[in-house]
This record gives sequence, C-alpha cells and structure tokens, in this order.
Amino acid sequence: MGKAKKTITAAVLVIGDEILSGRTKDKNIGYIADFCTNVGIDLAEVRIVPDVEDEIVAAVNALRSRYTYVFTTGGIGPTHDDITADAIAKAFGVGISENPEVIGMLLTRIKPEDLNAARRRMARIPHGAQLVKNRVSTAPGFWIGNVIVMAGVPSIMQSMMDAVADKLETGAKMIIETIDAGGVPEGAYAAGLGEIAAAQGELSIGSYPSFLDGKFRNQIVVRGKDAGAVAMGVDRVEALLKSLRAAHKGL
Amino acid sequence: MGKAKKTITAAVLVIGDEILSGRTKDKNIGYIADFCTNVGIDLAEVRIVPDVEDEIVAAVNALRSRYTYVFTTGGIGPTHDDITADAIAKAFGVGISENPEVIGMLLTRIKPEDLNAARRRMARIPHGAQLVKNRVSTAPGFWIGNVIVMAGVPSIMQSMMDAVADKLETGAKMIIETIDAGGVPEGAYAAGLGEIAAAQGELSIGSYPSFLDGKFRNQIVVRGKDAGAVAMGVDRVEALLKSLRAAHKGL
Repeated sequence: MGKAKKTITAAVLVIGDEILSGRTKDKNIGYIADFCTNVGIDLAEVRIVPDVEDEIVAAVNALRSRYTYVFTTGGIGPTHDDITADAIAKAFGVGISENPEVIGMLLTRIKPEDLNAARRRMARIPHGAQLVKNRVSTAPGFWIGNVIVMAGVPSIMQSMMDAVADKLETGAKMIIETIDAGGVPEGAYAAGLGEIAAAQGELSIGSYPSFLDGKFRNQIVVRGKDAGAVAMGVDRVEALLKSLRAAHKGL
Repeated sequence: MGKAKKTITAAVLVIGDEILSGRTKDKNIGYIADFCTNVGIDLAEVRIVPDVEDEIVAAVNALRSRYTYVFTTGGIGPTHDDITADAIAKAFGVGISENPEVIGMLLTRIKPEDLNAARRRMARIPHGAQLVKNRVSTAPGFWIGNVIVMAGVPSIMQSMMDAVADKLETGAKMIIETIDAGGVPEGAYAAGLGEIAAAQGELSIGSYPSFLDGKFRNQIVVRGKDAGAVAMGVDRVEALLKSLRAAHKGL
C-alpha cells in the first residue's frame, strides 16, 4: 500500500588509534547498525581509520559521495589527537573557526577563567555546519552536508543520535525474521536455502552458524522490506527444515 | 640494541550483512587488534562490507595494495551467501576450484553420502592459496598473496589466527602505558599534553575520556616502540598531572 519508499543508505566512520590498537573495544558500530535497521536506513559500509588527517579526509570523501549519510564517531575532544573537526572542514573544503554559540554552551559548565585554549578547541566548527547537541556533555557534535560528526564516548554518541533521529530521512524498514535450524546442519539445508534465495531475489537470506560448548547452532535470517515476501520466505524455509528433519530422523 | 625492525601493517576486512544489520555484534575486530598489537603488527584500517561480490573485491584490492597483511573474516561457509572465496579469487584474478585436500579433510567428519554440493562449496579454494586449518571445524580458511581469509565464527577465526601466527612477519612491538588522569579534567591537561606530544613526535599520545555513573574519567595512553622514549613520555605526563593537581587543589 502507498508508494514505495526510496532506499536510504549510510556508512559509519570510526576515527581513533585506540580502536585500531585494541585498547578500546568499539561499541558504537553495533549501536548505529541497530539504530539504522530500526528506522529504515541501510547501513552499507563501515570503516575504522587512525587519528591521521589525510586518512580521515580520504575516508569521509569516499563515503559521503556514495551513501545518503555518513556517521562519524570519535576525535572531537579538547586534546591534540582530536582532529576530526579540522579533517571534516578539509574534506568539505570549508573554513573552520570558533563558534560563538558553542563557546556560550561551554560557559554554562566551565568558568570563564577555565575556558583555556584547549577547551576552546571543542568550539571549532566547520563553516556551514549545524550543531548536534547532547544531554551528557556541553560539547556538541555537528552536521555538515550529509555527514554527522559525533563523539566517541558511547553515551554521548547515543545522545547525539537521539538529537538527529527526527531529522534523518528514512526508507522502508527492514523486516527481519530469524528461524532456528533446530539441529539441521548448515550443509544439509544449504542447497534448499540457496534455491529459496534465488526464487525470492527481493529477500536477503543468510545462514549464521555459531559455535558454543562444542556444538554448532545455526540460525537462518530472512530479511526484506515487503511483509508478504518475508512471510513467504519464512514459510519456505520452515517447510525446507521440516522436510529435512523428516528425511533424516537422526537430526 | 640490534637493527631497527621494519614496520609491518595490517587491515581487517569483515564481510557480512549480519554485522551491518546489527544482528551480529562483531567480536573479531577487537580480537585481531589485540593480536596485532601483541605481536608487533600495526593495524591501520578496518572495513566492514556486505555480502556483495563487487564490494568485497574492491575492498580486498584497496587494502591488499596498501598494507602488509589483510585479514578477512566471514563468508566461507556452505550456503549461497558465503561468497568470500569466489570474491577473493576474482580480486586476485585467479581461478578457483574444489581442492582435493579439503575434500579429504571434510570427509574425516562428513560421511561420503552426506558430502553434497553445498558442503563441497567449502572446498572451493582459489588457485595458489595455502590452506589455513583450525581445531574447531574441518573447513579451512586460506592464505593467498598477503590476504588471510578466515571464518566469521570467533572461535574458528581465533584458531585460524593461531595457525598463521608463526608465519607472519612482525615488527617492533608497541609499548603501551596507560596513566589515569586521577580527576584532572581533559581540558586542563590538554595544552600540556599537546606540548609533550609535539616534543616527542615518535610517540602516539592519546587522551580517552569515558563516562560512567555521571562522571567523566580520563586516561592518557602513551604508545611507542622505543622503551626509553615511552618512559620519558610517561614521566612527562605524570609531572604534568602532578603540577596541575598542585595548582588546583580542588581537583
């Protein structure tokens, strides 16, 4: 019913040596992936790059030309290794300077005599960007073109996502159904599953093994944007598993 | 002492719709990041791409031309969405066919009558690749050129890393020291920390805030490959924090 919504895509760009060194285990990719799926945005690519300006500029430009939105995390604090804002300005070829509104925001929690040069760095915002506020800290992220620049601290990043959520264009939501293979091994259902996937090209059907306590467990996931097509795919997968169980009573 | 070791770099390429949709939360990036740091390989970039052949080929070729090693995870099972082996063969411009040794490995756990076409797919190995075995499953990964292709299931991937660990060229190990800022706010030490970072350009010095129970906690990390330089950097950071605490008794 209604007209088909267009496809909205996104990429995530995680910026930070601490993720690449293993010191910090990223928690933002999974959060943004869930967020995108829930609102109807297709997360299509993720990159993690170090705190190196040329790397950030190259990744931002590669991703922003390809996807509806780019969400970046990390590198917007007051220290010398926080170079995201300058790199974004360079990627867009715009100037960057201290934003008076941000200075005012910082002054709500920082005494004027404590607003040193380092803290003022957090007010450097590329020209043409809109601020993205958050409830956790006074330092904002920003939104320029199709790039949304957020903090790396998960609670702050999540608050920034909340702040932009209503302004994002979204497409049809992905409907995701998970079917437990219930002991039928992946190699037994693979051929039949491939036939279902080929017959219903509008669906994305995946098979995901996990290995726990010495045993494999398999789940089949049927994804699509049309409820009827997803339901038909699920019926076919369940019929396949049933027929395999009947054929091999030992399963 | 001894001659300086050369720098060895790596990238990780995670392949799988399930990571991008948020269904599966990746655990392999952090593991490989720790592994690389521990053995003296600089993890320089990570990408996550969907189960789409052109995307995998493009990412493999972009990364393998730039870094010493590329570690891929995911997409080597028996189902239709497992297309990594074919994509790698395409990226290298080599053929791919059923590898008799892998068929023999599969037959150690699978009865000949159960070795169907889907399971035989797991024996498709690009020409010129060497097998990467693991202790968890009989299906191997493989190593071609500078690309090491591994499973997505963490326990299998980790066993494959163990299998290749001794064969990887490694550089000088990164020495990493973490200093808790002990209540000194990031904005207070940022300027001094930037001066230390500028004075010791051979070090990578980062400041990492975290936010827990309504309070910020900051850690400063000093990374480098020369033990003397790291120790000097740590001394300078500790002296900086001490002087700031003395200046601001309220901290």
